[in-house]
Amino acid sequence: MDRLRVGVVGASGYSGSIAARLVAAHPRLALAFATSDKWAGDTFESHQVVRLEKGAGAAARFVANASALEHAKDCDAVLLATSAQVSMGLLPAFAELGKQVIDFSGAFRLEASAYPRWYGFEHTAPAWLSRAHYGLPEVFGPAPRAGVVANPGCYPTAAILPLAPLLRERLIEPAGIVIDAKSGVSGAGKRATEEYSFGEIDNDFRAYKLFGHQHTPEITRALDRVAPGVTLTFTPHLLPIHRGLFATCYARPRPGATAERVAQCLADAYARSPFVRPVAPGDVMLKRVAGTNLCQVAATANDDIVIALGALDNLVKGAAGQAVQNLNAMNGWDEALGLDALQPFSA
Amino acid sequence: MDRLRVGVVGASGYSGSIAARLVAAHPRLALAFATSDKWAGDTFESHQVVRLEKGAGAAARFVANASALEHAKDCDAVLLATSAQVSMGLLPAFAELGKQVIDFSGAFRLEASAYPRWYGFEHTAPAWLSRAHYGLPEVFGPAPRAGVVANPGCYPTAAILPLAPLLRERLIEPAGIVIDAKSGVSGAGKRATEEYSFGEIDNDFRAYKLFGHQHTPEITRALDRVAPGVTLTFTPHLLPIHRGLFATCYARPRPGATAERVAQCLADAYARSPFVRPVAPGDVMLKRVAGTNLCQVAATANDDIVIALGALDNLVKGAAGQAVQNLNAMNGWDEALGLDALQPFSA
Amino acid sequence: MDRLRVGVVGASGYSGSIAARLVAAHPRLALAFATSDKWAGDTFESHQVVRLEKGAGAAARFVANASALEHAKDCDAVLLATSAQVSMGLLPAFAELGKQVIDFSGAFRLEASAYPRWYGFEHTAPAWLSRAHYGLPEVFGPAPRAGVVANPGCYPTAAILPLAPLLRERLIEPAGIVIDAKSGVSGAGKRATEEYSFGEIDNDFRAYKLFGHQHTPEITRALDRVAPGVTLTFTPHLLPIHRGLFATCYARPRPGATAERVAQCLADAYARSPFVRPVAPGDVMLKRVAGTNLCQVAATANDDIVIALGALDNLVKGAAGQAVQNLNAMNGWDEALGLDALQPFSA
Amino acid sequence: MDRLRVGVVGASGYSGSIAARLVAAHPRLALAFATSDKWAGDTFESHQVVRLEKGAGAAARFVANASALEHAKDCDAVLLATSAQVSMGLLPAFAELGKQVIDFSGAFRLEASAYPRWYGFEHTAPAWLSRAHYGLPEVFGPAPRAGVVANPGCYPTAAILPLAPLLRERLIEPAGIVIDAKSGVSGAGKRATEEYSFGEIDNDFRAYKLFGHQHTPEITRALDRVAPGVTLTFTPHLLPIHRGLFATCYARPRPGATAERVAQCLADAYARSPFVRPVAPGDVMLKRVAGTNLCQVAATANDDIVIALGALDNLVKGAAGQAVQNLNAMNGWDEALGLDALQPFSA
Repeated sequence: MDRLRVGVVGASGYSGSIAARLVAAHPRLALAFATSDKWAGDTFESHQVVRLEKGAGAAARFVANASALEHAKDCDAVLLATSAQVSMGLLPAFAELGKQVIDFSGAFRLEASAYPRWYGFEHTAPAWLSRAHYGLPEVFGPAPRAGVVANPGCYPTAAILPLAPLLRERLIEPAGIVIDAKSGVSGAGKRATEEYSFGEIDNDFRAYKLFGHQHTPEITRALDRVAPGVTLTFTPHLLPIHRGLFATCYARPRPGATAERVAQCLADAYARSPFVRPVAPGDVMLKRVAGTNLCQVAATANDDIVIALGALDNLVKGAAGQAVQNLNAMNGWDEALGLDALQPFSA
Repeated sequence: MDRLRVGVVGASGYSGSIAARLVAAHPRLALAFATSDKWAGDTFESHQVVRLEKGAGAAARFVANASALEHAKDCDAVLLATSAQVSMGLLPAFAELGKQVIDFSGAFRLEASAYPRWYGFEHTAPAWLSRAHYGLPEVFGPAPRAGVVANPGCYPTAAILPLAPLLRERLIEPAGIVIDAKSGVSGAGKRATEEYSFGEIDNDFRAYKLFGHQHTPEITRALDRVAPGVTLTFTPHLLPIHRGLFATCYARPRPGATAERVAQCLADAYARSPFVRPVAPGDVMLKRVAGTNLCQVAATANDDIVIALGALDNLVKGAAGQAVQNLNAMNGWDEALGLDALQPFSA
Repeated sequence: MDRLRVGVVGASGYSGSIAARLVAAHPRLALAFATSDKWAGDTFESHQVVRLEKGAGAAARFVANASALEHAKDCDAVLLATSAQVSMGLLPAFAELGKQVIDFSGAFRLEASAYPRWYGFEHTAPAWLSRAHYGLPEVFGPAPRAGVVANPGCYPTAAILPLAPLLRERLIEPAGIVIDAKSGVSGAGKRATEEYSFGEIDNDFRAYKLFGHQHTPEITRALDRVAPGVTLTFTPHLLPIHRGLFATCYARPRPGATAERVAQCLADAYARSPFVRPVAPGDVMLKRVAGTNLCQVAATANDDIVIALGALDNLVKGAAGQAVQNLNAMNGWDEALGLDALQPFSA
Repeated sequence: MDRLRVGVVGASGYSGSIAARLVAAHPRLALAFATSDKWAGDTFESHQVVRLEKGAGAAARFVANASALEHAKDCDAVLLATSAQVSMGLLPAFAELGKQVIDFSGAFRLEASAYPRWYGFEHTAPAWLSRAHYGLPEVFGPAPRAGVVANPGCYPTAAILPLAPLLRERLIEPAGIVIDAKSGVSGAGKRATEEYSFGEIDNDFRAYKLFGHQHTPEITRALDRVAPGVTLTFTPHLLPIHRGLFATCYARPRPGATAERVAQCLADAYARSPFVRPVAPGDVMLKRVAGTNLCQVAATANDDIVIALGALDNLVKGAAGQAVQNLNAMNGWDEALGLDALQPFSA
């Protein structure tokens, strides 16, 4: 059985680096090439402690980003671990070559009109916005085999997974949702700034981008597909840890939304999902998911409010792992292939 | 000028230990005695790296908790860094001897009827509940000189300081407030349990006691004094750090509650406060307050919601520092005495 | 092809828990049972976020430690993640049933006379001490198929791997070696003590057991097999992290021990090892190995001294991963089976 | 009584920032000015959460580094928290104006011939090298009132304090000392590089600059003044914490160097020192000193080796606090003035 050949563009960032390792260790994938301007020419193994068991040819050394399209002829699928502006150009190019494309950025998650405000640029490939499948398979199903995938953001994944079933079952009001989310620092990518230096982050905690984070319209849009009328406030915070993301979501209850009922709703929704784990609210813990492709979810309620929780590893279920899961799903394989041997780091 | 002689009961816990050091280094206080069953008989300096410059007599060695009342004859004021049930017995005893008493626990912060539900016991000294001054001086003023003080909880301090001025100025609705708070682990005190061991906390983040934390009625009661009709949801979370507490508060805006107006409201309210610092929301950071008696506050708004933030060191402004501040205030001294040389650890 | 059926005794500790997951995810192993008195009766999945894909029968729920022998009839191999005193009794019992046994403790790593001083007990199964294979396969080869294995300690693995080739090639003096080692806290196991609580470990660093750590005779004995005359000083320290162990070793150079030569010696020794990675001294970093079964090693020298470095994950290459590697080796399989998909947590 | 007016050059770095706060809160000092090109024009309080109680005039806002000499006419003493090359030019200029100068850098700690190799530049003010007092008052006494001070490095302070008494009492051999030291990241200053970003440091541990750290000749030179013939190996490592430095030192024992004798030697040497605290080896802990001007020291021995430990806060006793201590000492005041209210962060 031939392996699907996968290229990774942007393989020196945190999620690109994990993506390359997941591809290299996957039983049905082979790493076709990995690009990084910073590491171009270096051997894969000089930067990845994990050895490239199956890497012959182009994957043995990192290649320049500019050579990505040239290497595409030798691959079946491409993972774009690139910024939104770079992805906006690359996704159509690879897609038109007939490659499966999974984009980690926000470039294909919104409608065109939202980009100037939330991303600061005009969208130059608006035709692809409607063709890109929003790749949260537990809520929106697998992408078509020949499709392109907008891999969801880390915050959206952690918020949508606990909220979507509650909205679908009409247990919460779609208007006035509050999402108070907390992310490890790797969500910001590798940074060469004083602001993200160890001394400035360690022992700190802060909120940022109040009312202004670009994941706000992404969450709204995705939830609105589930239950029209969604409005929400999203407040991201920075945790003094490397990996892990926790979303605490507040919504007004609709009739019948008891503590038992909202918990059962999540249990039912994800009973057959390999990666979404409904648990009791007090058992949602970053230590149980960081390092894995799992997302823990929980919900409870009193007369005044419903609280829904989500926890995941922002680099795995929030990025590289979800990308591989999407690749598995669109190729008709077990969604867990190449992802179920990942171990939590702290549990 | 004679120093006020202060005893610390429960001096081996995190906040009791800091309280003893603050007393020992304070220009108008002297440590009269420090109790700890765990350390009874040991020299003060064997457990406190800081030397007891002014400690003669009883303070040179830790004494047993049971001897606290006996030592009280030799002191003017007592800090109770004890559990609620212990404080419930000790506060009346010391107060009846005419001592100034500042209690760190929740034993005198609520009305009697609330104790069975929130603290799990019947209150045995209900007469003192109305006599105890809720010691948040920036909002409720200094205690009378001969008074007893219920030192506020760490979460309540961080939530009340940003919310009270907004409620007083009628910029937010009192009903339906959501307080999503995150605390360092020392808030739970010294723990000899696997649950609080390093390996279980490091790199983790979790919510706990949803709908059930005992600070819920305390915050409600204090804010209700400022604006009747307060109802709220309070969700505490555990940060993987030792010290520091951050509260993100959401409230429905009332007419006129623009971003500018809510920020100005806090700026005006705390213009002359030595310890409460109104800043921009993005500048509220644990690293700037941990180690000090400061509380940073901020507020902003859009059409849908007002967000108010508070950040402090749970062991200082949330416990030992606030106790000394209360002692300063009730004795008519500068509130900052003995507290303004504390340095932030990370900034 | 049938899977080897493996039981894990002591599956609720840090290394036992990882061992159970590694067995469950291994392509040629199946988890036969997992014991834990603390979790007895609970489902495997209530404590292990990773689902037990292949677990039927006894492995579906944790069983009591006392039932380990009874379950042994249904297994081929046993991993003992138990204390030295418990292992001392269990290893002979399982071995006499013809099971492959791998013991994580120090119970079978020394000669009998060393136990009273270093472990505080008389050895009750001295006959098995010479039969137990010291399971560091890169230095001492695989255990025989029918054998029992004393899985090396975490500190010994990190120190022996960089030092053994230098001793074998006579590039360093065997006498007067200094090993200054630093370990993450999980090396001490799960602890329900104030000493190991988060607040006491976070931001701290300390040395412990100077001249008295039980790994001292183990390292001495193993290195002495490589080059007689080894004497050494071993100083362990506690790092404020969960996982990872770093050994800095100092030795007197013998003639010819240049920086180039000692580096080349390690490169040659481990050229074909899947898990030991010789790198430059500045590239030995816990972040590259924590989470994996890798050990990075390096060596350099000047006229006065040779410095050799080793870094590994104390729970994986220092415990559970090495145990699976030993199982692979003694069954004649690829040593990396079931271990090469582990990802570093921070790189 | 007039306060001594002190300027701080380089007040936006970690140690410069702490130095400015210590000066501002000191009972006999007043902050005359604080320079920082990054913050020039900003108010002191916009970057320092601590308010400048006594700051009128020039200190109310940060001024440009280039204006330091101009502001010097209005001050009595200057703290140089600048790089070695900048200090090399500034110290003579301030000293010739008759100011007391304390330099935090390594520019005046070595002999001229050592600078090209260890600091990469030729020394341009060699005449001042012999005039600069090496400011470790516990070992080398106070500087003369009119003097200039080379404030010791952080690693040297932590290694010299435990080793100097042992050398002076001839309890250890001066040749062949090994210093294995571990420092928090703030020792490297504020860094805007990926290498020092949170994600690269958190959960990591590494050695660096083997055989090449510039503190090697500084330690050697200082110890050689105590006992001629010192040779040493110094290996620095990076701890994943912000503040704190721990030195583990190994030396060959001389006759009579029992465990009791080496411990007593340190106890005697520092019996009257306010900041150096001899303790048992197992009690040397970063958590007890980080945040304070204390250095814990310990020593023990067996027949083969003497181990001496030192622990301090690299930004306080290893930099800013020691500078204030030197200022106290050279002005004939209590060495602890303005330093004894500092609290440990974690104990």
